[in-house]
Amino acid sequence: MAEEAAEAPRVAADLLARNAELVRALAADLRARPPRTVLTCARGSSDHAATYAKYLIETRTGLITASAAPSVSSVYEAAPEAQDVLALAISQSGASPDLLATAQAARDAGARLVALVNAPGSPLADLADLELPLWAGPEVSVAATKSYLAALVAIAQIVAAWTEDPALEKSLAGLPGLMTRAADLDWSPALPVLEDATSLYVLGRGPGFAAAQEMALKFKETSGLHAEAFSAAEVRHGPMALARDGFPVLVLAQDDPTREGVERLATELAEAGARVLIAGAEAQGAITLPSLSGDPLLQPILLVQAFYGMVEQLSRRRGFDPDRPPGLAKVTRTL
Amino acid sequence: MAEEAAEAPRVAADLLARNAELVRALAADLRARPPRTVLTCARGSSDHAATYAKYLIETRTGLITASAAPSVSSVYEAAPEAQDVLALAISQSGASPDLLATAQAARDAGARLVALVNAPGSPLADLADLELPLWAGPEVSVAATKSYLAALVAIAQIVAAWTEDPALEKSLAGLPGLMTRAADLDWSPALPVLEDATSLYVLGRGPGFAAAQEMALKFKETSGLHAEAFSAAEVRHGPMALARDGFPVLVLAQDDPTREGVERLATELAEAGARVLIAGAEAQGAITLPSLSGDPLLQPILLVQAFYGMVEQLSRRRGFDPDRPPGLAKVTRTL
Repeated sequence: MAEEAAEAPRVAADLLARNAELVRALAADLRARPPRTVLTCARGSSDHAATYAKYLIETRTGLITASAAPSVSSVYEAAPEAQDVLALAISQSGASPDLLATAQAARDAGARLVALVNAPGSPLADLADLELPLWAGPEVSVAATKSYLAALVAIAQIVAAWTEDPALEKSLAGLPGLMTRAADLDWSPALPVLEDATSLYVLGRGPGFAAAQEMALKFKETSGLHAEAFSAAEVRHGPMALARDGFPVLVLAQDDPTREGVERLATELAEAGARVLIAGAEAQGAITLPSLSGDPLLQPILLVQAFYGMVEQLSRRRGFDPDRPPGLAKVTRTL
Repeated sequence: MAEEAAEAPRVAADLLARNAELVRALAADLRARPPRTVLTCARGSSDHAATYAKYLIETRTGLITASAAPSVSSVYEAAPEAQDVLALAISQSGASPDLLATAQAARDAGARLVALVNAPGSPLADLADLELPLWAGPEVSVAATKSYLAALVAIAQIVAAWTEDPALEKSLAGLPGLMTRAADLDWSPALPVLEDATSLYVLGRGPGFAAAQEMALKFKETSGLHAEAFSAAEVRHGPMALARDGFPVLVLAQDDPTREGVERLATELAEAGARVLIAGAEAQGAITLPSLSGDPLLQPILLVQAFYGMVEQLSRRRGFDPDRPPGLAKVTRTL
């Protein structure tokens, strides 16, 4: 897992270069024939990448972005209204049956299907109007790392080209270098808080919520730790009840208008007795994990890159093998 | 909390009668001017009702239904593309600032705004094109019960009228009686499994996923128990790693095409060493909690009704006051 995560900066550089032409053509088509809605189709880590896509697309293009509930097509066999819809399918394997059923139903109903896939020649790529390869190469560890980060980079590249945003284009050009630096950040101050924990919240807001979802899943898969992700706003609607008496909370922030509220939340949680770790900002009573400044849309990528190194160590300290989570297979077959 | 939950059958009967005219007019308007997309705006328990709306609307009308991420409007100030969009706002208080910002942004951008609200004269109702009151009356317990169930009933009533579905109309007419019976179901066999637990998964699929989300939140709020909801398909994409060695899992099913897969999952979880409780179906190695047969779209309502009685008892056994969760207020103020 650590080796694969360490390849992510090179994967990002490859992807940005190799997909540049395809993404430019896609962007021109999206401007020429604007979709009215975006539908993301994904599961697991890829669905967290879809959360990232939702924030970027909604805040940058204004298009409503919905997450497809696979059972709607694969079990209930409902046909969506998908004329003028952009369906964005994201998958490491491009082979999960429920994802294929959802993508097929959307396409049959008229959606333009763009697939971000890491496996060459996958059934999902065959189905798509356009395949954007993730170029992450074989991923042996069950816990996806480089392919997840590649999906985020691909999404940011699409949005930058679609909205013709020179600032984001420039930030993307510098991203692989920042990812290399992020991989060297030392998040080990988190280890003493987490090594004997049983439960944990991971909180983020805006694009950082996608990073929170990914971290929560990785804590479960690699370290047997019940981590749950919440948006930093949603957590106040009930889940806060648990965050006291030493309950650990990892809070993520980026340099955008959400930061102040996220810092306030972290301070309140620490005051209520939670053990608070914070990355991307600072808060009274919280342990700060190191982060890099940069484009707030891309900071979640850097936070996840830094996190992977820490969770690998945590996994081993807790007696797990991060590459072989109990009871999981690489391609998940559900209908 | 128990008293308020026990009022839910009467609330459902009231709501179905009092809103009948308004809902018929709304349904006629939705058929005359069909929306192209539905956008739900909600937080906390109301957002779980929005999940229920997503399943019913997507499977019954084919319209893509997206959940509004409040920060998109309230913090990032992005304007959605909302022409011909049906915005469905759900709120107990109708007063949370982030929800109001989201609803306002959708309306400003052209959406038709329908508000399901439990508080008469709320700011949300003022903003809406149509207010459908939830008729649940004052709810003193911080943990919402009757107003949550009322929201589900209101959603089912809208979908039944919108799609002119006589079977669902008929099922709705019988619902209050079934809710009364559901409130008397004895879920106490769950107590020994849960009274010393620290973590738990609640799994459902299709409309049952909304019930799973609601139960997970109530476990947190009332019993200090870290319960997390997953769709019965999503849980295979990673979270299964925790479900072994006595980890408790509550599995929900309804009488529809998802049931077989849900039962198979429950059996696998029990084989992997999880302590499995199941309601709405049966599975080898699992403890069956009693349920009622009925319309599968409405069974999640009956499961939640039965659940509230159990979680109230659980709360007290674990030394909590179910009406006063630590650190929570009735109206949540976030931006």
